[in-house]
Amino acid sequence: MNRIFLLMLVIGLPLILIGTIFNWSDIPMFLLCAVAIIALSSFIGRATESIAIVSGPRVSGLLNATFGNAVELIISFFTLKAGLIGIVLASLTGSVLGNLLLVLGFSFFLGGIKYKRQNFSIHDARYNSGLLIFAVIVAFVIPEIFSMSMDEKQTITLSIGVSILLIALYLAGLFFKLVTHRGVFSSNDQEKESEEKEQAEWSRGKAIVILLLSTVAVAFVSERLVHTFETLGDQFGWSELFIGVIVVAIVGNAAEHFSAITMAMKNRMDVAVEISVGSTLQVAMFVAPILVLASLFMPQSMPLVFTIPELVAMVTATFLVINLCNDGESNWFEGLTLLAAYLIIGIGFFLL
Amino acid sequence: MNRIFLLMLVIGLPLILIGTIFNWSDIPMFLLCAVAIIALSSFIGRATESIAIVSGPRVSGLLNATFGNAVELIISFFTLKAGLIGIVLASLTGSVLGNLLLVLGFSFFLGGIKYKRQNFSIHDARYNSGLLIFAVIVAFVIPEIFSMSMDEKQTITLSIGVSILLIALYLAGLFFKLVTHRGVFSSNDQEKESEEKEQAEWSRGKAIVILLLSTVAVAFVSERLVHTFETLGDQFGWSELFIGVIVVAIVGNAAEHFSAITMAMKNRMDVAVEISVGSTLQVAMFVAPILVLASLFMPQSMPLVFTIPELVAMVTATFLVINLCNDGESNWFEGLTLLAAYLIIGIGFFLL
Amino acid sequence: MNRIFLLMLVIGLPLILIGTIFNWSDIPMFLLCAVAIIALSSFIGRATESIAIVSGPRVSGLLNATFGNAVELIISFFTLKAGLIGIVLASLTGSVLGNLLLVLGFSFFLGGIKYKRQNFSIHDARYNSGLLIFAVIVAFVIPEIFSMSMDEKQTITLSIGVSILLIALYLAGLFFKLVTHRGVFSSNDQEKESEEKEQAEWSRGKAIVILLLSTVAVAFVSERLVHTFETLGDQFGWSELFIGVIVVAIVGNAAEHFSAITMAMKNRMDVAVEISVGSTLQVAMFVAPILVLASLFMPQSMPLVFTIPELVAMVTATFLVINLCNDGESNWFEGLTLLAAYLIIGIGFFLL
Repeated sequence: MNRIFLLMLVIGLPLILIGTIFNWSDIPMFLLCAVAIIALSSFIGRATESIAIVSGPRVSGLLNATFGNAVELIISFFTLKAGLIGIVLASLTGSVLGNLLLVLGFSFFLGGIKYKRQNFSIHDARYNSGLLIFAVIVAFVIPEIFSMSMDEKQTITLSIGVSILLIALYLAGLFFKLVTHRGVFSSNDQEKESEEKEQAEWSRGKAIVILLLSTVAVAFVSERLVHTFETLGDQFGWSELFIGVIVVAIVGNAAEHFSAITMAMKNRMDVAVEISVGSTLQVAMFVAPILVLASLFMPQSMPLVFTIPELVAMVTATFLVINLCNDGESNWFEGLTLLAAYLIIGIGFFLL
Repeated sequence: MNRIFLLMLVIGLPLILIGTIFNWSDIPMFLLCAVAIIALSSFIGRATESIAIVSGPRVSGLLNATFGNAVELIISFFTLKAGLIGIVLASLTGSVLGNLLLVLGFSFFLGGIKYKRQNFSIHDARYNSGLLIFAVIVAFVIPEIFSMSMDEKQTITLSIGVSILLIALYLAGLFFKLVTHRGVFSSNDQEKESEEKEQAEWSRGKAIVILLLSTVAVAFVSERLVHTFETLGDQFGWSELFIGVIVVAIVGNAAEHFSAITMAMKNRMDVAVEISVGSTLQVAMFVAPILVLASLFMPQSMPLVFTIPELVAMVTATFLVINLCNDGESNWFEGLTLLAAYLIIGIGFFLL
Repeated sequence: MNRIFLLMLVIGLPLILIGTIFNWSDIPMFLLCAVAIIALSSFIGRATESIAIVSGPRVSGLLNATFGNAVELIISFFTLKAGLIGIVLASLTGSVLGNLLLVLGFSFFLGGIKYKRQNFSIHDARYNSGLLIFAVIVAFVIPEIFSMSMDEKQTITLSIGVSILLIALYLAGLFFKLVTHRGVFSSNDQEKESEEKEQAEWSRGKAIVILLLSTVAVAFVSERLVHTFETLGDQFGWSELFIGVIVVAIVGNAAEHFSAITMAMKNRMDVAVEISVGSTLQVAMFVAPILVLASLFMPQSMPLVFTIPELVAMVTATFLVINLCNDGESNWFEGLTLLAAYLIIGIGFFLL
């Protein structure tokens, strides 16, 4: 699989360069960029993992907290710079929905076909569900509802306040998980053992170089990708909302999808849940507020106010996931339920 | 009790026939039809049970899945045919609310007066709560919210998609409960024993004949019943909403009310919960989508879009029930809480 | 601490008297009244406790049920009499939010800094979460949504019905906790022992006199306090909503804040949770409906209809608290999450 990703890069990147110079049309460029980003995501993921293995859990946690959704962040940054605020909010929504319903759904479903019941830490599940409710039900819903009777300036002020609190609580949560209550999380012996056995794929130096190069490459490709959105919408009759929620989200999270499902099929559901729900929390509590704050230095500020369908989709998905996860067990039918919910929401955004 | 039901039929059916010929006024006709339907429901229920006992759990599950809400389905079908879409959606709402709050409320309350604490399977409770959230919070809320910015055609398309997914997941759920994870559900020895002892009331042949005859009779009576609604509203000042949510729902679910409460008072709370929550899921995931699909062949298509009060009532009831059920225990006070919630919602619909 | 409260009274009350006679301006009067009410709350609390210790748990439960939020009730009563319905509803909202997020948040956070994990009864947590959902999600949401398509008279009728049901269920809950299911709640030996050791601060006679005098004094001061609200809003640019939700709520609940946090830091989290969540339920199921019913005898009736931001804030806070509490465990990070939610909502109301 890793070779395929390398091949995708070796062929893809030069083609994008050529295409940019000779001004190819947007549809093939979109496909090339999507393929390149998926391959680069896999490199970023593996480089992060390699550094993590040689650096111990705290550095690993911080690394993952910042680079885990680097691709997402970079694409969104360039979309924001292009003034496409609607697509940024939509792709954040799509990232939350994709991770919660699609990634977790496939993990539960495919893992559940192989194993009758799979277990994951109930402590992690509770920690995650508390933060999911905080982020989606409190921190996303309050600005939405309150901004209805606010002017633009008040809405931006509220968005800034909420964003700072989201980031602060996200960092406090890392401190909680990695420092004060470390023993509580992922402390089962079996996992420790398997961790010890794990060998870094690359040396620390090589991993850092790959990480930096891949990040730069993603930035370059993302900027090109963003400019294809308009044509994409016109050509296929897709709305801005559908492009953001479904298309961008799937491209931006492809690497996570792949690794979560792999873990689920190895019966390491703990890791699969951590990737999908952890990634959701990172998008909601770190990527989204960073983008809100970054937008203050751009011509057009982005408030933390989603469209009503986006918000309702995230809220209902959150309730479903919390309910299915809080027993620390999964099976194929729970996976199918999540996938069905994703389909319902996907059809909705397609028709909108 | 069974003799009373027989008596109700032997007297009721001929009177309805006579009334239809001589064109009696609608109020006595409504009462006659209601009585006949309650009695017929009991026959359908007993016939289904008899066939189930001699046929093993899988056939039994499928039978229950299709005939469990046959009366509801037939009444709704004729209401739909009469073009009264508002009453159909209202009676689906009423069925959900009646089963979740009234039936479960009385079961918990009356059972709880007799026994200090009653238990039911926590596995069933989790399975049920996951599907309740999927059906009510995801599959009912999404079309409601999304349809606000859709035209009629898009709304119908979304309703069709959601309906197909609801039915598919409902059938997958049966497969999960009856085939792949059968051992998990209702596997305690005590129950098995009591099942073995159970004797079918009627032979299979007799049961099938009774089932078919009762179903035909319900169809006939339902058609007559539907035509009394308009007069009923004018006479008592009841809104279409109140007739659907409270009146039709109580008539259509009377048999289930009766048997769930009987089971609760015999301390078989597992069965009582299964009847009330199971029936809710059947209405939400099978009856409602079937009606949406059936309406496509009628002059006026029915979207899966409830009124806001209907939807909010179902959503809040779902949250309350899930919260009270997820510990697998019940007592009289939990029952009273459910009944109080039903009263609040009932007063609301009455005043609306 | 108790001496400070006494000092605050001995100095504060005469000053308020003098200020009223010489017509001091509203800002110093507001501060004096706030200080006096906080001190008086502490006296009411200690008098109630003294009577409770010598009277056994049932009288204690009833006493607490009626005097627990006496200050809140009295302030609201005079605000209602002054026709400031908006502030009454806002201060009820603030009381719910303050107890659920601020008091519980500080208890979890400060207790959690001292102890790694703290436990409280899971039975209490379930009982509380069921009633929280009933009160906030069902009984507050239904009139809100239904009243949108109702005229004023219907809204008042619905509010009366809901209020009566809230009070009835609240009393039934006391009966459940204190009579039929007493053993289930707070029956752990350790607590019993510590209860036995507790000595009443005052004799029953002295306590009753202090209780009555303090209540009269609160009533007198509250009436003065209410008249400062308008100036307060003009002077600081605070909206009616912000005064009600944040300022009045903090003054009215100061005593509870203090005692809950004290208990949490003594590792008696059971008591801290009982004070904060129990007080929330009392406000929602007893104080609020009493005020609705009392308003019927005043020139302007108060419906049980909050503003949309108020309702959404209470609903989201309820979901967060239920999720964090239902495992019967707390830590500093859960406390921080609650405090962050309070800040988000507080900023929202400030900007509104």
